[in-house]
Amino acid sequence: MQYIHHNDLAKMTPRYKARVINSLSGFKSANLIGTVSNDNINNLAIFSSVFHLGSSPALVGFITRPCSVERHTLENIQQTKQFTINQVNEDFWQEAHQTSARYSEGECEFKATGLTPETIHKIKAPFVKESRLKYALTLKEIVPIQQNGTLLVIGEITNIICDKEAIKSDGYIDIESLNTVMISGLDSYHTSKRLSRLNYAKPDKKPVPLSLNGELGNTLI
Amino acid sequence: MQYIHHNDLAKMTPRYKARVINSLSGFKSANLIGTVSNDNINNLAIFSSVFHLGSSPALVGFITRPCSVERHTLENIQQTKQFTINQVNEDFWQEAHQTSARYSEGECEFKATGLTPETIHKIKAPFVKESRLKYALTLKEIVPIQQNGTLLVIGEITNIICDKEAIKSDGYIDIESLNTVMISGLDSYHTSKRLSRLNYAKPDKKPVPLSLNGELGNTLI
Repeated sequence: MQYIHHNDLAKMTPRYKARVINSLSGFKSANLIGTVSNDNINNLAIFSSVFHLGSSPALVGFITRPCSVERHTLENIQQTKQFTINQVNEDFWQEAHQTSARYSEGECEFKATGLTPETIHKIKAPFVKESRLKYALTLKEIVPIQQNGTLLVIGEITNIICDKEAIKSDGYIDIESLNTVMISGLDSYHTSKRLSRLNYAKPDKKPVPLSLNGELGNTLI
Repeated sequence: MQYIHHNDLAKMTPRYKARVINSLSGFKSANLIGTVSNDNINNLAIFSSVFHLGSSPALVGFITRPCSVERHTLENIQQTKQFTINQVNEDFWQEAHQTSARYSEGECEFKATGLTPETIHKIKAPFVKESRLKYALTLKEIVPIQQNGTLLVIGEITNIICDKEAIKSDGYIDIESLNTVMISGLDSYHTSKRLSRLNYAKPDKKPVPLSLNGELGNTLI
């Protein structure tokens, strides 16, 4: 085992340290956030910091820097109060990564990467047509994080678009069947292989595997 | 494609809705948070909301409810200002899930699940011996989320313990080689399969695959 102490961290170069620290939280979700400016210029950017905040109300959050390559996303959300989140899958993970390049404000990441913008009734922010699970959100709150000057952007989910077959009978969405990818560190992309669903844990019982539909009686692999 | 609108969400039962909404953010990290109370009772609880906040300073955050099964974790962190985060791997994912059972305050999840507490010099909070990537944190801030009454707990990383072979020459940690697992929805566990690392994206160039050590010239699968 390697023991890395606070002093060792202080001696690392910023890039080396960024790679180490970005590996620590575990696998991260890979999502494209779609926005549009008041001037009708679409923006698309990959984020690895999208996370579940609560289901009632249905809230999702993500972390952004106030001034960074992602600033078009933030500016557009502040202007229009709306954004879309689009799960990245195996069919376009390289195009998704490419959206992290520093395109200028007038350049559109959809055009640059070949991904297809898609809009639906009443939602101005663009979805990614190639994504098989995506949703629109209304901005609820931007929480400043004092510790490092980042911002937590919180949205409430208004419209979900998802491949029908992936939605199981108890509400679980089989995102593995959608070939949804994840990120480790800053730049590594992965697909998934299911171990099992498990039932709700109780103190005096061992966990029991569930079928994809949430039924008891499956066999653990 | 299935289109789910705001009105449809309102009609769902709370459990069905929780399963749907918990699937939307994508794959989630699987981590055990270790704490100790002032009375020296260890606590261990699984969290799927641990996320990277920044590398300089090295900050990680997680979301908790003020009153819930996780409250021992929160109370202990408030008392001692310290906690550990331990990546869950394929060797103990079922034991990790079992920590989510509602054990009473006096019961120790280590004893109940058979996982092994491990302490190091100057860190009172217990690590999970079976985890191959784990770190200690000092509490920096607890940010209340107005939208749903949850709390964002932010810690600064002080000590990292990691399998040596997993740390690559550029600082990237190959968490796939540690068999780190991830969660989808509320209860599904998965392992990973790497597509590739990719180089830093530039506007006029296609992404190029990197070797595990971060070198150019690998071939994309």
